[in-house]
Amino acid sequence: MKIVLIGTGNVAMHLGPALIKAGHEVIQLVGRTEKHSKFLANKLSCDYTINKKQISPKADTYIVALRDEAIGLYSKHIPSEAKLVVHTSGSVNANVFSGITQHYGVLYPIQTLSTKRKINFETIPLCLEANSEKAKKKLLTLAKSLSKEVHWTSHDQRQTIHLAAVFANNFSNHLFALAEDMLTKKGMSFDLIRPLIAETAAKVQKSSAHQMQTGPARRGDTETIEKHIELLKNKPQLLQIYKILTRSIQENDGPIL
Amino acid sequence: MKIVLIGTGNVAMHLGPALIKAGHEVIQLVGRTEKHSKFLANKLSCDYTINKKQISPKADTYIVALRDEAIGLYSKHIPSEAKLVVHTSGSVNANVFSGITQHYGVLYPIQTLSTKRKINFETIPLCLEANSEKAKKKLLTLAKSLSKEVHWTSHDQRQTIHLAAVFANNFSNHLFALAEDMLTKKGMSFDLIRPLIAETAAKVQKSSAHQMQTGPARRGDTETIEKHIELLKNKPQLLQIYKILTRSIQENDGPIL
Repeated sequence: MKIVLIGTGNVAMHLGPALIKAGHEVIQLVGRTEKHSKFLANKLSCDYTINKKQISPKADTYIVALRDEAIGLYSKHIPSEAKLVVHTSGSVNANVFSGITQHYGVLYPIQTLSTKRKINFETIPLCLEANSEKAKKKLLTLAKSLSKEVHWTSHDQRQTIHLAAVFANNFSNHLFALAEDMLTKKGMSFDLIRPLIAETAAKVQKSSAHQMQTGPARRGDTETIEKHIELLKNKPQLLQIYKILTRSIQENDGPIL
Repeated sequence: MKIVLIGTGNVAMHLGPALIKAGHEVIQLVGRTEKHSKFLANKLSCDYTINKKQISPKADTYIVALRDEAIGLYSKHIPSEAKLVVHTSGSVNANVFSGITQHYGVLYPIQTLSTKRKINFETIPLCLEANSEKAKKKLLTLAKSLSKEVHWTSHDQRQTIHLAAVFANNFSNHLFALAEDMLTKKGMSFDLIRPLIAETAAKVQKSSAHQMQTGPARRGDTETIEKHIELLKNKPQLLQIYKILTRSIQENDGPIL
């Protein structure tokens, strides 16, 4: 396919090379800053522009890999004859494109993408939405060329996946950060619990997370919970997080106390 | 060393074979139930008893791998001539052994151990405490034979590590479980976010978790946060978790809103 890729952020940085690898032709990259646009366009051996009014009309597919609030702003400038326009957001409605073109949809990769980390795009689950049969067919071909894990999801389901991803990724990473702070404040290294974090994630790869739940809340070990609450007595926010997650474990998986 | 291993739970099930592999002689296993004791004793090719009054006096090292509240109960029956008595708990004070023997300490493995999952014990960080020079020397020899990651930690530091481990492991696993529930309730598979969970843990193996923080709270994407709050409006506990973790990310790593 002939593709215009709009965006130079984490998603575009991973999606761009994946498109090339899958044999597509990226004919133009549209960015906001000269520096990032030039960098990614070089990687993709394609033209670029930082002027959204100069989006090429020559592609058949336009992928808007922008942060949520920018999607509407940029897509107004996509030529109306575009055969397919998709965004990559977990939460924006597909109909953001309804006034722009006839065929549109969503290609949402469920993964945490950082510019500096390599990842095999073929293993990333892609959630698809399309507004027409034509869009559906075209999007499916595109998605299958990129990943082995392709799923049609409703708008409602995608919202839920995005929310679940926030819990599983953003919030768990924040708990790692809080744990890191606790250790470094007492002169210890985050290295002490890195193997624990790796194992925690490994354990749920083939099992239900409920089955893998351990710890004082799960065991009903009130003595340890009280010690922890005492340790956190001068840290109201950590204490609140501790109490609510402990209660939630107890109510979901813990023994009746 | 000649070792009596007390316990048949997750820690004993992993520690027992690691002791044998390191060339120690487990002369007796002490358990609470015939079934589990026989099973582990068979694996270790050693005698066992389920009568705590029959703990052998012939060992030089006694490892109490029991849940916190049982440590005191069982250790009363350890022969007082024991050259070293240690427990494996993250939160129990070493002086639980003070009336029992002269030389005691702690050997706390920082890892989430499940009976059914294999793990390379050599990679598990071990936190050590000892009450005497003699105990210190003996414990260090023992610990180094088991793992490449051996650390002396104070009582205070061990409490912090244990608390940090609860945040990084128990709480993050619970967030995975909540995410799993959200998906399955909408007819979707947990498989959709398993690669995300694996990548989240992989990202912090060599970086600070703060640097790896992503998501709407980190970006200051209030529109998405409001959508999520709307999705959770009928789930007060999930909503509370969402709000407090979002606020904590914003205050720790987020842009000023």
